[in-house]
Amino acid sequence: MQSLQEKASEWSGVQTAHAFAIDDNNLFHKLGLQTFVNLSTNFYNRVYDDEEEWFRSIFANSEKENAIQNQYEFFVQRMGGPPLYSQRRGHPALIARHRPFPVTHQAAERWIHHMQQALDSTSDIDDDSKTKLMNFFRHTAYFLVAGVELKNQNMPCKDAAGNHPCKNF
Amino acid sequence: MQSLQEKASEWSGVQTAHAFAIDDNNLFHKLGLQTFVNLSTNFYNRVYDDEEEWFRSIFANSEKENAIQNQYEFFVQRMGGPPLYSQRRGHPALIARHRPFPVTHQAAERWIHHMQQALDSTSDIDDDSKTKLMNFFRHTAYFLVAGVELKNQNMPCKDAAGNHPCKNF
Repeated sequence: MQSLQEKASEWSGVQTAHAFAIDDNNLFHKLGLQTFVNLSTNFYNRVYDDEEEWFRSIFANSEKENAIQNQYEFFVQRMGGPPLYSQRRGHPALIARHRPFPVTHQAAERWIHHMQQALDSTSDIDDDSKTKLMNFFRHTAYFLVAGVELKNQNMPCKDAAGNHPCKNF
Repeated sequence: MQSLQEKASEWSGVQTAHAFAIDDNNLFHKLGLQTFVNLSTNFYNRVYDDEEEWFRSIFANSEKENAIQNQYEFFVQRMGGPPLYSQRRGHPALIARHRPFPVTHQAAERWIHHMQQALDSTSDIDDDSKTKLMNFFRHTAYFLVAGVELKNQNMPCKDAAGNHPCKNF
């Protein structure tokens, strides 16, 4: 059984090491708070105006302002800035918090499409940071597809063949 | 509906702000890698030798060495050190990765009991760091109880009364 990060790498085409190259330097110090606020605002402006109703409807029960704040606070924290997200909401717990949503392969691709456009329209992000961020976003989107797919599965900790699937989780 | 961190605070007696006081200073730089290796080794030595069979059995399908490494790599990363955990396994995704295990209130208390003893028997941890770590551990243990309790629930994003439980997730 493949682990979550193995599935994420295969589906996204981004190795785990490249996804977490965001940690090679402190992207929060490099880019600053306002850049992340702008990025998430650009992103959700596109998402909430998406011409694809099936994708837009995923976010229909969330306030746009909350979605923006949740996202940029997580990005700031994960990219080496102050732990804004955890101070307000606790652990990111990315898979569990996406559990209510239909995070399919198709939804991941649409999410990535909008994020690429949001990145390209946000000023003050250099090319190296853009590459690192997109590798992180692409890998994470598919990590969530893999994680949320498990939500309705019963996963015994020892299968009939004596393997231990929990170890790969 | 209470959010995850509200439940964690109520059950643990630790406010979210106190749980994340671990971020007030860099505990990895203060304590060093070896201290976290020792802490996790002390912790799992106790867990795997626990006289309470019901608790010991939760870990029966995991190798002790793996459990130790997973834990200290997460601690090092979360306490301001290098992102050892994510480089090897991806996002912590704490709730999802605990999903296969019976994380009950009773199990959380037993986990906390062993961690308190492990902290007390690990040298070179000053009292202020001990307090911060225990607040983080206690809150996180109950955050996981709250999160894993959701695993078998269907959570519609709009209930009969028109409330939106997903917003509190």
